Amino acid sequence: MKINPSPSFSIDLTVKSTLTRAELEKLIIAAEGVPALSEGVASPFRFVVNARSSDHQQEIIQTLEKATGTKVLSADEITFRSHLGGKIEVTSKLDLTAKGALAIAYTPGVGRVCMSINEDVARADALTVKKNMVAVVSDGTAVLGLGDIGPEAGMPVMEGKAMLFKEFGGVDAFPICLATKDTEEIIRTVKLLAPTFGGINLEDISAPRCFEIEERLKAEMDIPVFHDDQHGTAVVSLAALYNALKIIGKKMENLKVVVNGVGAAGVACSKILMAAGVKNLIGFDRTGAIYRGRKDGMNPVKEWFAQNTNPNNEQGTLSESLKGADLFLGVSAPGCITADDVKNMAKDPIIFAMANPIPEIMPEVAKPYARIMATGRSDYPNQINNVLCFPGIFKGALRCRASSISEGMKLAAARAIADLVSADELCEEFIIPSVFDRRVADAVADEVERIARSEGLAREVIDNKTLYKLR
Amino acid sequence: MKINPSPSFSIDLTVKSTLTRAELEKLIIAAEGVPALSEGVASPFRFVVNARSSDHQQEIIQTLEKATGTKVLSADEITFRSHLGGKIEVTSKLDLTAKGALAIAYTPGVGRVCMSINEDVARADALTVKKNMVAVVSDGTAVLGLGDIGPEAGMPVMEGKAMLFKEFGGVDAFPICLATKDTEEIIRTVKLLAPTFGGINLEDISAPRCFEIEERLKAEMDIPVFHDDQHGTAVVSLAALYNALKIIGKKMENLKVVVNGVGAAGVACSKILMAAGVKNLIGFDRTGAIYRGRKDGMNPVKEWFAQNTNPNNEQGTLSESLKGADLFLGVSAPGCITADDVKNMAKDPIIFAMANPIPEIMPEVAKPYARIMATGRSDYPNQINNVLCFPGIFKGALRCRASSISEGMKLAAARAIADLVSADELCEEFIIPSVFDRRVADAVADEVERIARSEGLAREVIDNKTLYKLR
Repeated sequence: MKINPSPSFSIDLTVKSTLTRAELEKLIIAAEGVPALSEGVASPFRFVVNARSSDHQQEIIQTLEKATGTKVLSADEITFRSHLGGKIEVTSKLDLTAKGALAIAYTPGVGRVCMSINEDVARADALTVKKNMVAVVSDGTAVLGLGDIGPEAGMPVMEGKAMLFKEFGGVDAFPICLATKDTEEIIRTVKLLAPTFGGINLEDISAPRCFEIEERLKAEMDIPVFHDDQHGTAVVSLAALYNALKIIGKKMENLKVVVNGVGAAGVACSKILMAAGVKNLIGFDRTGAIYRGRKDGMNPVKEWFAQNTNPNNEQGTLSESLKGADLFLGVSAPGCITADDVKNMAKDPIIFAMANPIPEIMPEVAKPYARIMATGRSDYPNQINNVLCFPGIFKGALRCRASSISEGMKLAAARAIADLVSADELCEEFIIPSVFDRRVADAVADEVERIARSEGLAREVIDNKTLYKLR
Repeated sequence: MKINPSPSFSIDLTVKSTLTRAELEKLIIAAEGVPALSEGVASPFRFVVNARSSDHQQEIIQTLEKATGTKVLSADEITFRSHLGGKIEVTSKLDLTAKGALAIAYTPGVGRVCMSINEDVARADALTVKKNMVAVVSDGTAVLGLGDIGPEAGMPVMEGKAMLFKEFGGVDAFPICLATKDTEEIIRTVKLLAPTFGGINLEDISAPRCFEIEERLKAEMDIPVFHDDQHGTAVVSLAALYNALKIIGKKMENLKVVVNGVGAAGVACSKILMAAGVKNLIGFDRTGAIYRGRKDGMNPVKEWFAQNTNPNNEQGTLSESLKGADLFLGVSAPGCITADDVKNMAKDPIIFAMANPIPEIMPEVAKPYARIMATGRSDYPNQINNVLCFPGIFKGALRCRASSISEGMKLAAARAIADLVSADELCEEFIIPSVFDRRVADAVADEVERIARSEGLAREVIDNKTLYKLR
């Protein structure tokens, strides 16, 4: 399968040439580069070109270098150039150069604010960054699909996550990559960081440690703790399913669902689907179906699966269980189901193939047989992307000082996301809002806050005005 | 002693009145408020007024309320208003809404950067925020002069520090207030944070724990660790002393120095003065002089003092040792020396009275007898302020990937600060640059980097261009 050229392999070229810009662009296209930008009325010209790999970048450069009277003056790798020095910065909200500003923001004025918090520690949620600051915590053990690459190598992802928090939710977030894989040590460290943060977003921590870390932190901290790999994926998948069912007219309780992959995301997706009404769900790992009585490759999480899913105790292969299934939900590996598998599913099959970057089945392959298809990719319809969930979830939770994020808040978030697709818009190719739909975070935050209040998880928010209004 | 009105107690007033703006301003001044801003051509008028206390703020408001035809429509406490939601935010350096930006800054592009760091972890110093990010770490046990107020209450100071890092040094800094006072736990936690940070600025941790924490972290981490309360104060004091000695023509090695207060700052000031050549230095605590053979209230740090300072083994009171002293350096408590003490010092006495916010002796009191006077305050000449040191120290150290901050780097920083006061400018009232002198951080950084390189503490910096230049 040939991957499409992508901005993730883009190059920024400055080219001196006796050829015209149009002629050079033709050469780039002939080398299968995709020009995203062409600039310059006379040589040297500038081209930003998407390629499909590092080798392909070199091929494009060499193609130009071989052309008559042409020299590539510079070729910048844009992804790496964009990462120089990291992607986030810590900036001041106040102008420190204004007259008197130092005496207000720093000594002696700051001391008055310190003493106010010392009198009532709840004021920290109003008078410090804790009000709106989330820690994006990882140990680098399960970064994207790259595995255990270490905490330093995980940083670019956590920085990216912090950017998404700010851009889409207006929530400040800071990456914390920890130099330990020890469960107890991670738990203890996160708890010690609580005075700085109003919420904890766990990220890219490998299973099964991620389950214990999240459960323990939820039990032992009084601020929202959310493992995004689990619950972000689960919430957005459920949102997509709500809308898919509107199209095909089936009901949750009648679905047969096959989940491939029972890591962090697979477990959470299964649990939220069942909380939403799904009765017949079968989980698969590399060994096969997870059923009561299975002996091979079990662990406590799979034991939970065996006891709580698979009501008919199916014991066959993935292909066997897919026969008559209504939904395939994959959080596993590229290419693990075939067109024939889809063909054998029930009428109007739904495929959520979320392995990243290459799904369990490519849309081109599944399309002739699948009624509705979603992936994690931005270059196909129906992208199931966590960014639709986590900024709004934390925005809502922080706003009402929720002590945790409940199942009810997650279900409400899924419903809020789904409801942003209007009846007019809803169709097979559009079951989930775009990640650039600016209404999403607020819609999610509003529902999350509403449920937090109704469940008694919200806490008193000090009215800002009482903190500074003398009259 | 009456404190001057200050921006730290400023109020923002909106006043509706039949009086003129000038008449209202007269009333404010009669109530001893200092108008920093008066606005409005017709009622309602706006005034920003500095007061000296919360009570004084109320007196000013009440004075206005009593005036004929006058109503205070609103009165905002500016210091608290400025702290709402904290003083810093985490912002993106890239425009995520640009076409292709998500694929570069997040998946799939970010994965390439992750794998590059996974291949060579040193690249984290070039491709993540670690390049320029300092943790401002505290446990809230010795915040300003306020004591052990807790980690939440310490946050506003650490946020302020992060602002100063960025504003004056262009260094990103993030506040980390830890919910533990346990030395071992603080050490371990800071070490676990290393993948995120390029440097550690310890702040407001009480003595003697701060000494062990800093020493252990310096020994066990390969990034700069700097306890600012100790070394920041020490470096800037030494800078001030270099210039003071130019004026009075004395030499380090001939000085008699009395240091009052042997907490974190006192110890570091004493050590740096001795490293700079001072031979005769006597430390005082509440019990009196620290001398060989003293039994009362000793601890390992004071034992070091007894063994390494006070060559004549003076055992008397502060007043007795001040007789004939050339320099009094106070990092202790308000008002603990008198005009008579200054009178009894050697010719051309130098007073560095750095207790905050009220010095060991007020400049008005010392001035008739002191040749040169410096304090920690911004409202008198010669402010000894750490902000002259820490932004530049870290800027220089991070730039050359220094593995630590050595004594040589600190001495060089002090010399760099002192040298910014030109021979023309140098006088009793101007021995130290203003905190707003924009040359300071770079001058310090350049010297710090130079010494780091000469001492072999600098490490290879990956040339940015090798990371992204294909041609």
